[in-house]
Amino acid sequence: MSAADRDIVWHDHAIGRAERERLLGSRGVTVWMTGLPSSGKSTIADMLARELDSRGVLSVVLDGDNIRHGLNSDLGFSPADRTENIRRIAEVAKLLTVSGIVNIVAFISPYRADRDSARSRQADGDFVEVFVDTPLEVAETRDPKGLYRKARAGEIPQFTGISAPYEPPASPELRLDTVAEDAASCARTIASLLERKGCIPSR
Amino acid sequence: MSAADRDIVWHDHAIGRAERERLLGSRGVTVWMTGLPSSGKSTIADMLARELDSRGVLSVVLDGDNIRHGLNSDLGFSPADRTENIRRIAEVAKLLTVSGIVNIVAFISPYRADRDSARSRQADGDFVEVFVDTPLEVAETRDPKGLYRKARAGEIPQFTGISAPYEPPASPELRLDTVAEDAASCARTIASLLERKGCIPSR
Repeated sequence: MSAADRDIVWHDHAIGRAERERLLGSRGVTVWMTGLPSSGKSTIADMLARELDSRGVLSVVLDGDNIRHGLNSDLGFSPADRTENIRRIAEVAKLLTVSGIVNIVAFISPYRADRDSARSRQADGDFVEVFVDTPLEVAETRDPKGLYRKARAGEIPQFTGISAPYEPPASPELRLDTVAEDAASCARTIASLLERKGCIPSR
Repeated sequence: MSAADRDIVWHDHAIGRAERERLLGSRGVTVWMTGLPSSGKSTIADMLARELDSRGVLSVVLDGDNIRHGLNSDLGFSPADRTENIRRIAEVAKLLTVSGIVNIVAFISPYRADRDSARSRQADGDFVEVFVDTPLEVAETRDPKGLYRKARAGEIPQFTGISAPYEPPASPELRLDTVAEDAASCARTIASLLERKGCIPSR
């Protein structure tokens, strides 16, 4: 029996998105960062959160390292589990957006269909896809956790970029070149986009 | 392969709970409301969100009607699905708390073990269990969606209070008597508790 069969209806909250956005002084939006392992997603997400905080704007970061310890601790790295991983994150991101909160998602999210599905759950303009476009050879050189080395040695199966596919976005709202720009600069580039979109106040 | 095997570690965010709480002027906490269908949980949750908004405090409401359309749309009402339903909600609630955000959970959450599990995921003091203690005969009389009627007619299986169990909390932080008090008064009672706990500013 589905929720619809059970007469479960969207509850029309007395305090909705508009009231929360008024309180926060910002607009709910999902900044969805996708890229290879070690491409710099989490570092840039942290820098962006810091940049927003310095402007008095609340943000919530969802990242693979954190969510996989909690909400998605029951999921592995098979294609089906990766899809469910992204589906749940997409729903949490949407929940934050409709609660008026700027949220920053930093996940490999290797499949285009999964990212498109995440986008399709939200209203136009509420979802900003950011491609952290670090070439494999650069990401593999960084490899702060030694994961690429282990993957190359066959110790980690289904590792994106090595033994599992990564499908780059066809038309992301933003493409970041982490070779030419450092993380702080990438974060400022995203913040500028959020300014132009009217999600956060202009400086 | 679990997240731990894969060397996934908690990322130490540059902007953490303390920074977000400073920005918001409140402290992250989960207000977990449990009670029978039509006991008044969602109504009180809305009233509480309104009360907090009027005090300049952000809150996020998670309720069964909304979450079951999104994050948990793949789950039904069997005991196992109810447990997974609550597990996921508990993880989202924790995520909000550690992001410094007051969150209000309004779910039947009929099993004591599931609620205790939700509590155990959070630090002491970060989880406040509120028993919306409406007697079955009163809830059944309210029945705004006609669900009890359908459940009595056998049209809805596994309906809490009729054909599925409800286990009342043994020692909730708060017990609300919705027969003696209206929803607005119940909301103010919760807000007063949050004040005393130092989660929100005193008026």
